Amino acid sequence: MGSESDKASGEDRLIARYFGPIATHPGALGLSDDAAFLTPPPGCDLVLKTDAVVGGIHFFPEDAAHTVASKALRVNLSDLAAKGATPLGFLLSLALPSDIDDAWLTDFAAGLRGDALLYNCPLFGGDTVRTAGPVVVSVAMVGSVPEGAMVRRAGARPGDRVFVSGSIGDAALGLALRKGAAWPLDAGQRQHLMSRYLLPQPRNALAEAVRTHASAAMDVSDGLAGDLAKLARVSQVAATIDVASVPLSGAAQAAIGADPAMLDTALTGGDDFEILCTVPPARAGSFRAAAQAAGVAVTDIGAIEAGEGARFIHDGQPLTFRRAAFSHF
Amino acid sequence: MGSESDKASGEDRLIARYFGPIATHPGALGLSDDAAFLTPPPGCDLVLKTDAVVGGIHFFPEDAAHTVASKALRVNLSDLAAKGATPLGFLLSLALPSDIDDAWLTDFAAGLRGDALLYNCPLFGGDTVRTAGPVVVSVAMVGSVPEGAMVRRAGARPGDRVFVSGSIGDAALGLALRKGAAWPLDAGQRQHLMSRYLLPQPRNALAEAVRTHASAAMDVSDGLAGDLAKLARVSQVAATIDVASVPLSGAAQAAIGADPAMLDTALTGGDDFEILCTVPPARAGSFRAAAQAAGVAVTDIGAIEAGEGARFIHDGQPLTFRRAAFSHF
Repeated sequence: MGSESDKASGEDRLIARYFGPIATHPGALGLSDDAAFLTPPPGCDLVLKTDAVVGGIHFFPEDAAHTVASKALRVNLSDLAAKGATPLGFLLSLALPSDIDDAWLTDFAAGLRGDALLYNCPLFGGDTVRTAGPVVVSVAMVGSVPEGAMVRRAGARPGDRVFVSGSIGDAALGLALRKGAAWPLDAGQRQHLMSRYLLPQPRNALAEAVRTHASAAMDVSDGLAGDLAKLARVSQVAATIDVASVPLSGAAQAAIGADPAMLDTALTGGDDFEILCTVPPARAGSFRAAAQAAGVAVTDIGAIEAGEGARFIHDGQPLTFRRAAFSHF
Repeated sequence: MGSESDKASGEDRLIARYFGPIATHPGALGLSDDAAFLTPPPGCDLVLKTDAVVGGIHFFPEDAAHTVASKALRVNLSDLAAKGATPLGFLLSLALPSDIDDAWLTDFAAGLRGDALLYNCPLFGGDTVRTAGPVVVSVAMVGSVPEGAMVRRAGARPGDRVFVSGSIGDAALGLALRKGAAWPLDAGQRQHLMSRYLLPQPRNALAEAVRTHASAAMDVSDGLAGDLAKLARVSQVAATIDVASVPLSGAAQAAIGADPAMLDTALTGGDDFEILCTVPPARAGSFRAAAQAAGVAVTDIGAIEAGEGARFIHDGQPLTFRRAAFSHF
């Protein structure tokens, strides 16, 4: 065998160098094994989610590598938040083209490490493979909830109030700006919208409030209109939204003021990574208080009713959208 | 909103049509939610693993889609087997180029479904994204072991015997055949080697025997020589292998007979997806009996000693390999 056999392979070196410092969970075994182990928290269910981001589809090739890493983690963290779950850790599958260099990997790992610390969500393990195509970052995330307590999309009941966190439409408008939209915005407004596209702000601080008070929840990733329609469909109820109540940032209001068609984009465009949930009316006050204590803005935007479908009422009239929800297919 | 909002998006339709039938675990909620939940088996640790396969790297673009699906699942199942774990289910992240059609997806889903049933490993959830590059299939698999019982790479002790399952080198030789090697093999021999590359046969039937008797284990995916070196390194021991004892199929023996350099390929080439494990001598008989009961051939190929490094002894001399282990990096 000789000395060659005692050296780690190129992939092993790459993993140890860049990703070892993020694998702080004892079950990750310092990434020195085939797999990781996890002793589940007693009395808990695990919550499992995977989402991928792809170069040229979910991010621009020129985006900084640390924002790519953050986005890949945060789109998954957002789902856990909406399910009322606490992150436990994640697996990373990384397909890299041959022109990825040390500088990119160093920056990518820095972004991953920062968010792993910020969200208390260490790396369990991963796989790094070559591809002739763009970067593909697949994250599989594991979280926990008390047994039986995962908040589902199904569960909304007539009479429930509909809440969203944060503000809606910023990311879709930020993407439009990246693609060349020329609205008369000030630098701060442009920056706000573009950063909301670049770097989701998942509402994990709201997870416990959602778990405690919501009858149904999901994260808004494919546009408020389409995602609400999904929640209503699986809950077998109707939803009516007062468009004037939908929380819009000042920047989004300015963009819509400059081009009223952007209201459609804001409500259907996707990448919000806010939480959409329904709350029984008797719990609405407690939910608001819990959200305030968690430091996350929530807004009552409408009501659940018997029936089916999601209606958005604007100036007394139902809105018709150009398309219901974002889909790459 | 109108009727558009009530329709599922393209991605949702794709998921429901192709992957819904594989999501038989109740926690998968029929793929109608953001995430899945899993109530962990009592008294168990979870075992977590992700591995990806990429078109043009891990499979040929012309390979049948059902074999691509099977390979993606089986490379992960193989890791679980080596860790002594029982599969519970998997997450699927699928990056697809735009030229993938219904026929490909139908065949892919059929392969996935067949193996999900065969290995009792249902789909928990997934994500389907577009890519401008080749197909990337990332699987994140969850298994279980009794608490604290995951078999590690670290754990081999001087005096332990080294075992491998099945036969070594077939897949690497099969890949060489795919790439044009022209050895005088009969049709059955060619078929054997090529099918071993195309479709791994993970040794999940051996998992319990490994968990009960092995002091250390890993799956052989990057070549026996390099993988044994990794096991020895992390266990802080040396390993000496009697090359004459390494189990070779008749087809592999014929290929090596035609071209003796292929012995090097067989021992270092990778894609074996056999189990490499070390067993204390007092347990070797019980391990053999348990393997026989499980219907998996195992072979004693050498011994663990104090020291470091992995040596392969051939005709009384240590072999020197062209390269220690396969790596894409």
